[in-house]
Amino acid sequence: MKISGKIVDLHKRKIYTGEISFMGGTITAIKEVESAPDLFIMPGLTDAHVHIESSMVTPSQFAVAAVRHGTVAVVSDPHEIANVMGVEGINFMLDNAASVPVKFSFGAPSCVPATSFESSGAVIGPEEVRKLLLDKRINYLAEMMNFPGVIYGDEVVTAKLKIAHNAGVVIDGHAPGLTGGDLVKYAAAGISTDHECSTIEEALEKISLGMNILIREGSAAKNLNALASLLESHPDRVMLCSDDLHPEMLERGHINLLVARLVNKEYDLFNILRAASVNAAVHYSLGSGLLRVGDKADFIVVDDPGSMKVMQTWIDGIMVFDGSRTLFDAGIVSKINKFNCNHILTDEIEVKNGGATMRVITAQNGELLTGSVIVETGNEPLVHSRPDEDILKIVVKERYNDAPPSIGFIRGFRLKQGAMATSVAHDSHNIIAVGVSDEDIVKAVNMVVDAGGGMAVVSEQDSELLPLPVAGIMSDMPVSAIAESYLRLTEAVKRQGSSLDAPFMTLSFMALLVIPELKLSDKGLFDGKSFRFVPLFAE
Amino acid sequence: MKISGKIVDLHKRKIYTGEISFMGGTITAIKEVESAPDLFIMPGLTDAHVHIESSMVTPSQFAVAAVRHGTVAVVSDPHEIANVMGVEGINFMLDNAASVPVKFSFGAPSCVPATSFESSGAVIGPEEVRKLLLDKRINYLAEMMNFPGVIYGDEVVTAKLKIAHNAGVVIDGHAPGLTGGDLVKYAAAGISTDHECSTIEEALEKISLGMNILIREGSAAKNLNALASLLESHPDRVMLCSDDLHPEMLERGHINLLVARLVNKEYDLFNILRAASVNAAVHYSLGSGLLRVGDKADFIVVDDPGSMKVMQTWIDGIMVFDGSRTLFDAGIVSKINKFNCNHILTDEIEVKNGGATMRVITAQNGELLTGSVIVETGNEPLVHSRPDEDILKIVVKERYNDAPPSIGFIRGFRLKQGAMATSVAHDSHNIIAVGVSDEDIVKAVNMVVDAGGGMAVVSEQDSELLPLPVAGIMSDMPVSAIAESYLRLTEAVKRQGSSLDAPFMTLSFMALLVIPELKLSDKGLFDGKSFRFVPLFAE
Repeated sequence: MKISGKIVDLHKRKIYTGEISFMGGTITAIKEVESAPDLFIMPGLTDAHVHIESSMVTPSQFAVAAVRHGTVAVVSDPHEIANVMGVEGINFMLDNAASVPVKFSFGAPSCVPATSFESSGAVIGPEEVRKLLLDKRINYLAEMMNFPGVIYGDEVVTAKLKIAHNAGVVIDGHAPGLTGGDLVKYAAAGISTDHECSTIEEALEKISLGMNILIREGSAAKNLNALASLLESHPDRVMLCSDDLHPEMLERGHINLLVARLVNKEYDLFNILRAASVNAAVHYSLGSGLLRVGDKADFIVVDDPGSMKVMQTWIDGIMVFDGSRTLFDAGIVSKINKFNCNHILTDEIEVKNGGATMRVITAQNGELLTGSVIVETGNEPLVHSRPDEDILKIVVKERYNDAPPSIGFIRGFRLKQGAMATSVAHDSHNIIAVGVSDEDIVKAVNMVVDAGGGMAVVSEQDSELLPLPVAGIMSDMPVSAIAESYLRLTEAVKRQGSSLDAPFMTLSFMALLVIPELKLSDKGLFDGKSFRFVPLFAE
Repeated sequence: MKISGKIVDLHKRKIYTGEISFMGGTITAIKEVESAPDLFIMPGLTDAHVHIESSMVTPSQFAVAAVRHGTVAVVSDPHEIANVMGVEGINFMLDNAASVPVKFSFGAPSCVPATSFESSGAVIGPEEVRKLLLDKRINYLAEMMNFPGVIYGDEVVTAKLKIAHNAGVVIDGHAPGLTGGDLVKYAAAGISTDHECSTIEEALEKISLGMNILIREGSAAKNLNALASLLESHPDRVMLCSDDLHPEMLERGHINLLVARLVNKEYDLFNILRAASVNAAVHYSLGSGLLRVGDKADFIVVDDPGSMKVMQTWIDGIMVFDGSRTLFDAGIVSKINKFNCNHILTDEIEVKNGGATMRVITAQNGELLTGSVIVETGNEPLVHSRPDEDILKIVVKERYNDAPPSIGFIRGFRLKQGAMATSVAHDSHNIIAVGVSDEDIVKAVNMVVDAGGGMAVVSEQDSELLPLPVAGIMSDMPVSAIAESYLRLTEAVKRQGSSLDAPFMTLSFMALLVIPELKLSDKGLFDGKSFRFVPLFAE
């Protein structure tokens, strides 16, 4: 096979009219030629860190969508499904990913469960990590979020790090804002990446300690503008990643859109593409081709680096996207789930007035952080949602066992009617719901229960469901279908009064205890600053 | 670190006075020098195919003994423990082997159980093979003994081969005497080795079809003399292996003794050492060092190629044997076993006279093959051992469930008194015993039962036991101790009248149904030619 065009050579740092020959999946020759089509041929793109579950589809459906945007390799941490289903869930991801040509490299999740203050579906201890790292498809220890545990030498954390060192694998980091002596200890533990930097100073300090920086631009966090200058100062120490990419964003683009943005910011094309391919391939030993003789024939054909519209994607010498269609399919999924709870009842979420004031969570648009306010409870025997004051009831129902729901109140969702519920709720993925009337909350939660997971919106007129039957957090439908459904549900919530840009995403972080200030676990209201449960009623 | 001596360079095919520098486990430089000690430095040796269980010790104890003989890498098929304990047993071997520096490469056993005519402890189906091949420590599909299954496209065999192809691993063969069109089909299935050749013609036919030949010289089969000329005719297509190496032989030497024998036969030293190191390292991707810059610093220091007395063994740049002591230890073993049977009783092994004649197995010294004779049963109501005619009772007791023993008669052991029993009995490793009096047979079997596996000798005066508590086929004691105990038991059997060279080995093959003619399974007397059970009484 031969293909010709304007070859973007990241090694010699030049673009020339050339022809690539390949056979049996491997590049056998690259030479300059007189003339060729006016299209750019460059290495395929790599997402250096993504939780596929956040796209609400299986790895194979993720791949079907991602090759449309020129992605050929993906470094993935199956952290979400591991919280739901442990090793069984991870094996599902591995097997499913193996059915498509995209080159997935999976990590062994290092922090499951995230805290002991919530009910998760599984525990990944040192022995599980050791066994996972023996699997040929698992090639690194995934983001070590428990940085206090690293710094203070927590026994379990230390054991996991030692296992990773003995296995000779890369250890990924996650240390937002960590600095000074603590950061020195963290880097000295052999943790070689971070994707949580939000300022250039933070990134430079981490680089100075030998870490590599993954510039993240996804659905939840956006650091590209803040960190882009690293492409000039440290071109061999940066990679690009999305971390979390919701289906409607994955439908529109992937790493290619970041490349185009950086090109339009006039960064050096070779540095950009090294960050988008070479650096991750080297750091994670991905085996993805980089357009050298002897490399795997993994490359993409694009119209122009400034648009990064992908005309063709090739993996192992086989065309997998032809400019209009993906040329492989996502296959059949043997569904797996862990959903062991019954319906909730309205009297289970009644709140008896137990004090003059109560703690209310305050959510902010696009933020994982929350605040907390104290409001008066009034004189009624029961405390209800007060939509006129934007104080709504929020409920978390454990899904792994049939325990009573926990209940709180939240400000920021601004629903005037109805309710919404989702089983995508970081990190334990219990069911979380917010709403105006108890009846609608119960209805929304029970729709999710009946579906074995999903997202639901209930209004006076109508109700709508996005089923997520794979572990209660993913679908086996194409990204396009899930994106459409997800957007429709989001619009429904907005019609009910919410002014949040992504109300389901905001809701999904309201049970994420590690990010303060006030959150709701299935076990009760949690103060993330003092790291302890607090009562609903303040006095 | 530096070491100097007469460097045996297998790549340039020369021996020169030189110095090797290494750091961090890797060779950084090799250069000629003026003078150096009068010792030979060569790549460490590899056993290209061995069932470690046959040495009756754990992999770590095997390693402690083998490095004394210059072995640095071992390609091992955990077939025996897989028959006893399945995947759990294989994982034990992997974990135990990982605790020592010798470079073990394990295969996924392809034929467990060996037949459906006996009770084994486990089944390794295609799905188990698939999962095993995902383990980073399992790098090939082990010997495909079911060659009829390959040739006739048996569904399970075909599934296992396909899984191995998809995993991109080497497939090992085992096809004694296979020739012509059947061999063409066998090789065409992608099976790339054979260690069962006993004639040069057989080996050359297999080589002509692309297969590699492992020249085997072990405790059970000895093909070195017959096949040595392959070192001249096909130096890149041969490796050396032991297949099965009993403890007393491993105590004396390993691949080094084969090298010395071949040197004394005046074969080319470079070809001999390529067969003993390079060829296996390449074929099985062992990663063992071959004395090139950039290779792992795995090498040995020997006094002379004609004696192959090993003065030092180095693995990954660390000295592991200093000429007198092994410098690592075998560690603590968490014992595993599968032994679920009770004592047998004398009346369970009584044989009521059921016909005028009966079938008697005839064992031959050093042979896996047996014959069959018809003898008269006499007029007594019970049939007993008749030591004067060398017709002894033989008993197989299943150890995985508590089933009644099966009983037959055998000629060839020549015991004049007492009994012997062993739980090393290929391939299912039930308990097999032979003896003169029922009381002594029962006593010997029950000693093995009480020990959870082992070998026992019972005589009128005395009894002796070699306990094999690890899966009932191995010990965690050093090879030297097991060798001594094994030789003592063998001598005891010889004092009781046996003229067999290795009576326990011969006994261990009397339940190996796939090798004809007449054998005894735990389910009854088995005719290996017609592949069916036959009654004890012939008429």
